[in-house]
Amino acid sequence: MKIKVAIAGARGRMGSTAIEAIEAAKDAEVVAALDYKFGGLHLHNGAINEEKQGIPIFTSLAELCAAHQPAVLLDVTDPDAVFNNVKDALSLGVHPVVGTSGLTKQELEAIFKMVETTHVGGIIAPNFSIGAVLMMKFAAQAARYLGDVEILEMHHDRKLDAPSGTAVKTAEMIKENRPPHIQGHPEEQVHLEGARGGDVEGMKIHSVRLPGLLAHQQVLLGGEGELLTIRHDSFDRKSFMPGIMMAIREVIGRKDLVYGLENIID
Amino acid sequence: MKIKVAIAGARGRMGSTAIEAIEAAKDAEVVAALDYKFGGLHLHNGAINEEKQGIPIFTSLAELCAAHQPAVLLDVTDPDAVFNNVKDALSLGVHPVVGTSGLTKQELEAIFKMVETTHVGGIIAPNFSIGAVLMMKFAAQAARYLGDVEILEMHHDRKLDAPSGTAVKTAEMIKENRPPHIQGHPEEQVHLEGARGGDVEGMKIHSVRLPGLLAHQQVLLGGEGELLTIRHDSFDRKSFMPGIMMAIREVIGRKDLVYGLENIID
Amino acid sequence: MKIKVAIAGARGRMGSTAIEAIEAAKDAEVVAALDYKFGGLHLHNGAINEEKQGIPIFTSLAELCAAHQPAVLLDVTDPDAVFNNVKDALSLGVHPVVGTSGLTKQELEAIFKMVETTHVGGIIAPNFSIGAVLMMKFAAQAARYLGDVEILEMHHDRKLDAPSGTAVKTAEMIKENRPPHIQGHPEEQVHLEGARGGDVEGMKIHSVRLPGLLAHQQVLLGGEGELLTIRHDSFDRKSFMPGIMMAIREVIGRKDLVYGLENIID
Amino acid sequence: MKIKVAIAGARGRMGSTAIEAIEAAKDAEVVAALDYKFGGLHLHNGAINEEKQGIPIFTSLAELCAAHQPAVLLDVTDPDAVFNNVKDALSLGVHPVVGTSGLTKQELEAIFKMVETTHVGGIIAPNFSIGAVLMMKFAAQAARYLGDVEILEMHHDRKLDAPSGTAVKTAEMIKENRPPHIQGHPEEQVHLEGARGGDVEGMKIHSVRLPGLLAHQQVLLGGEGELLTIRHDSFDRKSFMPGIMMAIREVIGRKDLVYGLENIID
Repeated sequence: MKIKVAIAGARGRMGSTAIEAIEAAKDAEVVAALDYKFGGLHLHNGAINEEKQGIPIFTSLAELCAAHQPAVLLDVTDPDAVFNNVKDALSLGVHPVVGTSGLTKQELEAIFKMVETTHVGGIIAPNFSIGAVLMMKFAAQAARYLGDVEILEMHHDRKLDAPSGTAVKTAEMIKENRPPHIQGHPEEQVHLEGARGGDVEGMKIHSVRLPGLLAHQQVLLGGEGELLTIRHDSFDRKSFMPGIMMAIREVIGRKDLVYGLENIID
Repeated sequence: MKIKVAIAGARGRMGSTAIEAIEAAKDAEVVAALDYKFGGLHLHNGAINEEKQGIPIFTSLAELCAAHQPAVLLDVTDPDAVFNNVKDALSLGVHPVVGTSGLTKQELEAIFKMVETTHVGGIIAPNFSIGAVLMMKFAAQAARYLGDVEILEMHHDRKLDAPSGTAVKTAEMIKENRPPHIQGHPEEQVHLEGARGGDVEGMKIHSVRLPGLLAHQQVLLGGEGELLTIRHDSFDRKSFMPGIMMAIREVIGRKDLVYGLENIID
Repeated sequence: MKIKVAIAGARGRMGSTAIEAIEAAKDAEVVAALDYKFGGLHLHNGAINEEKQGIPIFTSLAELCAAHQPAVLLDVTDPDAVFNNVKDALSLGVHPVVGTSGLTKQELEAIFKMVETTHVGGIIAPNFSIGAVLMMKFAAQAARYLGDVEILEMHHDRKLDAPSGTAVKTAEMIKENRPPHIQGHPEEQVHLEGARGGDVEGMKIHSVRLPGLLAHQQVLLGGEGELLTIRHDSFDRKSFMPGIMMAIREVIGRKDLVYGLENIID
Repeated sequence: MKIKVAIAGARGRMGSTAIEAIEAAKDAEVVAALDYKFGGLHLHNGAINEEKQGIPIFTSLAELCAAHQPAVLLDVTDPDAVFNNVKDALSLGVHPVVGTSGLTKQELEAIFKMVETTHVGGIIAPNFSIGAVLMMKFAAQAARYLGDVEILEMHHDRKLDAPSGTAVKTAEMIKENRPPHIQGHPEEQVHLEGARGGDVEGMKIHSVRLPGLLAHQQVLLGGEGELLTIRHDSFDRKSFMPGIMMAIREVIGRKDLVYGLENIID
């Protein structure tokens, strides 16, 4: 039997890519979409229609569940919608898989508490790219031996903020793994402000912004006489799909809340 | 108390770098050198002397042990000498740490058997660079998720053989980890012989040889819409020292034979 | 006054991207499309329509010229159509700019002869990416000083042929620039067939094919103690647009045939 | 006949490498060394000796010239000595080739003036690595087409100052070549001070310092849908030798002062 998935955020680009990926899998299917705007209509090939073609749309998760009994709610909406969707899912016994970023600390804590009560497991991942998660895991592991680290992240120049969330997350994961360590020359003389990058936990982060670039990160780990570089290039949002599928398959057996894809990757 | 280390191959470049590294460590010391050529003399700052300066040299490990009771024999000699040195060490209760490559399968098996009998633990590592070992480990781990792999190794053009042992070893470690997998376009048309590299276990290996290069390897792992690259640059033989020190500290508590540094790195 | 451009191949992905780029430029405009299939109809936002919206379509270049007097014909069709389009353009006094690959040697020679007679200049470029052309130019220039060269090209695994045309072209351009030179170790021992890549003019070419990759090339030039790497990453066909616009602006002042964008880049 | 070269700074590491390179060339020879400390002695294989082995040492250039008539003085000394050496050379009709950095602007101007009077040509180069100079030249050339540039320089963590002189020089050379251009997102939000690097002429410079690294620089040039990367890795001071030899051969035909190796490379 296929895993029944409901999707919130189906009309977005991530949503439509996810629908394709789920439909292409043999063990899962999209049974309905949650969308406050187009209740009663259907979604087919990314377009809303009134001819009952494709995926039926509901404005309420309760009604959606009554009609289609999904096991999983995949949320790829936005910071405003995600928290309520997750709460509704947990209270209805539907496992949330959340790719939307922007949950506040308070919201996250509230979700952890709900899961403790409901025992409906969920997976929340700021980054569903398996490659990116492996990069972070490996960097953290390697820093136990090669404790001098700099992070270089490179994005297109339409990206507004610097540094990237992934770069900061990487530094934090490394910090938890490497022994206390001060790196760099103690008498360093910087003749150009900012040249040595931003400092997170003693590691330097450098953000490059250029037209043409997509999303890239390198973690450089130096040791006496050697350099280990772990690099991830993200060329297309399709790269998130294997991680989303992995989470959908994993979450249905879970009674706890998993935060971060790294916790379900060995 | 410091770990007493005897060294075979002390006059070589790896040997002299190792002596410096051991002497710089607070918990180990070089007590004597094994060298068939200069018995009775001493070694100081890389030079043989008759003035009893530095490390005393012995031509027999038995005599060396009688005089200095080393806990460890570090062997950085050559394929001709290493096997006998290890045998002697095991029979004398000295833990061998071997950085010399070139042990045959038969020799390796014989050593495994001797360790089973003597319970004198040893560590044999074809590559003592922690960075290189991490690269191989991570590549093997990542290939479980990103199963399409190509390996690019780059060395100076004085290197006679291609591909490098590390590249082949990497492919073998990946093979044991990734699910059965056929990669590449089934109808590929290669218009230039060799352009697609050499094939090891379905993975392609490419060997670059250029003046200027030192020793470098990249493992490229591709997935839909993404690329993970794990790269190691070896700039200096000092990069082997942390691995050698780790092995010296580890081996004294061992009763088994460890083959490969990856087995003592978490 | 704007440069009037007719376009052949308007319905393809390259064609529609080119139309956007030309319309975005202040000094050029698309006046008509040449398309044997939809004569009399119009093209708007990539779709054919009968409501006379957008660019008018003609099946004959003669009629198109009579109605719209284009200065330039941009051809982004296919190997079957391009030769006739260029011949027609030259005989009608329209400057061809050709981004279609696949012209045979004979066809190319015939075009050169026609241009000598008609004095209608044209530009034919196998690669309109300025970045890629600069990579080739620089590599050729650098090889005069750093004569040991290997080329690494990396593409997605849906690419059927290896090596890429750009890699071979690069090797040929380098050959014309570097002094006669034999590279590599004369006694090299290759233990794995193909590991050392394919040979073009004494240079090694390595072709990597992995899912996730787009189109990438590195030229590695080694010298004693140093390495110069020139790398081009092509992420999107938009990268061809500046080269196409440069050619459109250049061709209207030309009376000769230019083969290769490198000849109009300083 | 061989070009007769005198060398100042012969006892340093650069000096001894240069002596080897000159002696290995068929068209040049080292006739004497200028050294204020060991006048009357000789230098052989890097060691001072009293047995008249090797290169004779003089404390005065005038005496050195009287005895050996060098055509060229190669200066690889230090900021304190170089200016006087060059002045002496020019007044004695010896062509200076200067690899020492640290000449002040005033000193440089004074040298230019002396050359105008004496017509004894000289070559002063802050960087004698041909690869590094090609990188800078190509970057400047490419920036005419790909105007968005960031520079990433990476050095070992014993380097005290950041950014490197080569990085700043590269930015300055690019500035002179690219059309006036503002890059980056006008509304960029930097949440971590320094993350976006240091600003030189609108270009960002990022300095990485890690143990293990030697001397590396990448110039990243972005365009719509593409990236051009020009990278130079300096692994060994031998990389300066071809540039020094080129300068020695070039300078003897010069009557002007050349500043920067890029001016004698096509």
